[in-house]
Amino acid sequence: MPQSHDNVRAMRWREDTLELLDQRLLPAEERWNRYRDAPAVAQAIHDMVVRGAPAIGITAAYAVVLSSLQHEGDLAAILADMDRLAAARPTAVNLFWALERMRPLVEAGATAERLLVEARAIHEEDIAANRRMGELGAALIEGGEVLTHCNTGSLATGGYGTALGVIRSAWAAGRIEAVHADETRPWLQGSRLTAWELVHDGIPVTLNCEGAAAALMRAGRVSWVIVGSDRIAANGDVANKIGTYALAVLARHHGVRFMVVAPASTIDMGTESGNDIPIEQRDPDEVLSLAGRRVAAEGAQAWNPAFDVTPAELVDAIVTERGVVERPDSAAMRALMSGS
Amino acid sequence: MPQSHDNVRAMRWREDTLELLDQRLLPAEERWNRYRDAPAVAQAIHDMVVRGAPAIGITAAYAVVLSSLQHEGDLAAILADMDRLAAARPTAVNLFWALERMRPLVEAGATAERLLVEARAIHEEDIAANRRMGELGAALIEGGEVLTHCNTGSLATGGYGTALGVIRSAWAAGRIEAVHADETRPWLQGSRLTAWELVHDGIPVTLNCEGAAAALMRAGRVSWVIVGSDRIAANGDVANKIGTYALAVLARHHGVRFMVVAPASTIDMGTESGNDIPIEQRDPDEVLSLAGRRVAAEGAQAWNPAFDVTPAELVDAIVTERGVVERPDSAAMRALMSGS
Repeated sequence: MPQSHDNVRAMRWREDTLELLDQRLLPAEERWNRYRDAPAVAQAIHDMVVRGAPAIGITAAYAVVLSSLQHEGDLAAILADMDRLAAARPTAVNLFWALERMRPLVEAGATAERLLVEARAIHEEDIAANRRMGELGAALIEGGEVLTHCNTGSLATGGYGTALGVIRSAWAAGRIEAVHADETRPWLQGSRLTAWELVHDGIPVTLNCEGAAAALMRAGRVSWVIVGSDRIAANGDVANKIGTYALAVLARHHGVRFMVVAPASTIDMGTESGNDIPIEQRDPDEVLSLAGRRVAAEGAQAWNPAFDVTPAELVDAIVTERGVVERPDSAAMRALMSGS
Repeated sequence: MPQSHDNVRAMRWREDTLELLDQRLLPAEERWNRYRDAPAVAQAIHDMVVRGAPAIGITAAYAVVLSSLQHEGDLAAILADMDRLAAARPTAVNLFWALERMRPLVEAGATAERLLVEARAIHEEDIAANRRMGELGAALIEGGEVLTHCNTGSLATGGYGTALGVIRSAWAAGRIEAVHADETRPWLQGSRLTAWELVHDGIPVTLNCEGAAAALMRAGRVSWVIVGSDRIAANGDVANKIGTYALAVLARHHGVRFMVVAPASTIDMGTESGNDIPIEQRDPDEVLSLAGRRVAAEGAQAWNPAFDVTPAELVDAIVTERGVVERPDSAAMRALMSGS
């Protein structure tokens, strides 16, 4: 019996050093990279050593501790590092959320020790939120097979996972019969990361190219599409990995339900709608080349947005640790976030 | 100015030998493989040295000539070779169509010389049909940008192309502003083949991962999706490269029109609906591995259908060399094929 990967961690803190599991090398190699300064962490986030909205938020929080250790009370230097971290990737709001949570402590001159307590709290709270979302989301599933996209598991979060946490919980409770995962081009997070986590948990997983998801739904094989999110706007519009919006349209067309699982830190009440969410455009070479070799003819261009926006009206449920919002809209999101 | 690739050929006949351009190596290498017997050609079709419904039909016709040369009047041996060719791939009906066209000559004891005349005629007629479809399809386009899927160009046909023929014609006539192409996993025919053909024709092409097509449509960038077909059923249902059906659903959702371009040899009046079209399932390793290296965790499965079926009601126009069928259904397809 392989060890369960719900205890895998994307990041760990050891002796004044942040260690990140280099997700670009998985599953072929498990290499931990070591970081002692925040700019190097910002670069690692940009380069996708670590990815997944909650995971990069937690990583940024630990990077603030590194900055504090390095700059020993030089507030301007620490704030400059925080700006650098914030600029690493534009779409996932959890990155900014985590930095904003650290900011009052930084500005009050907190010690690195105190900042580490806060970063660890952010990390632990995320895992607890995932466990809670796992229960809430699993309760919505009444059997059948599910389809997920990208990686939303232990590697994308503090641990356990958002959408993959729901799948783990639902599988453990006998509420789903099979898991399908999009391979998720261009980075293949589905093939490389999601399959790795599920295989090690003993949950059978069948991969498909994005192009095959529609045929899978038409064959009546899928009861729920379950995905994570990098930012949810105040009206319930959802930014997530490129390809998510297509799944939402296809799900609606086939009478398949569509669930978004994300901690409350992903909800950005300051962003009115999905139209206002900045979408990161990444290097065309991620599409034009494969395993370091150019596959497309020289002269061809590529359009490579990392995320897309799914309008709230295509979402059946947003699952957070604060509760479930069915058929999300501005009023329902406001009610969730105000706790009413 | 690079040489136009509308004159590229996927196959050529030279001195009693069939030569196939090995499309698995493009665009990095242009290697011609030589064949002297039909079983080797059947294997090459199965292995996708040559692919594209019209191209494999033409290739099979030439392979019958090889069989005749090898077996010199041994009818049973030639018919056995034809069975082998027919079994090479199950979905594209053009393969069977071409063999059925050769069969009466074979059974009548025609010489290899006479069979070569017929194979060349099939080849030339396909190119002429593509040119005609190019004109008919281009006339439907009134500007904007178009999206295509897989490769339907010179490499997939006798020459010039079906969907890509329409795009070539429309571009030459100034009727489209830009061409987008899905990279087309798992074989990347879009990145490797379509981009290669278009770049060499001087037609700007922008590739995208399949997952990004929905966002492209939502941005209002696409006026037509234009694809080929491997088999069209009597009711107008269309089998084509996996991922096509998703594009049809997405096109309808976004008010984008959907055009299928295929010669009449692709229309199978003996197959009532798309439900009756056999869909080739290919090796899961095509999804699980990349450039010869396993990318998915050991233990993960993959579902790898090579084609999917788009129901006729999602198709705005089927363009053939016999004419255009708008909003296809059984009656309209019957009228087209009976010439009424």
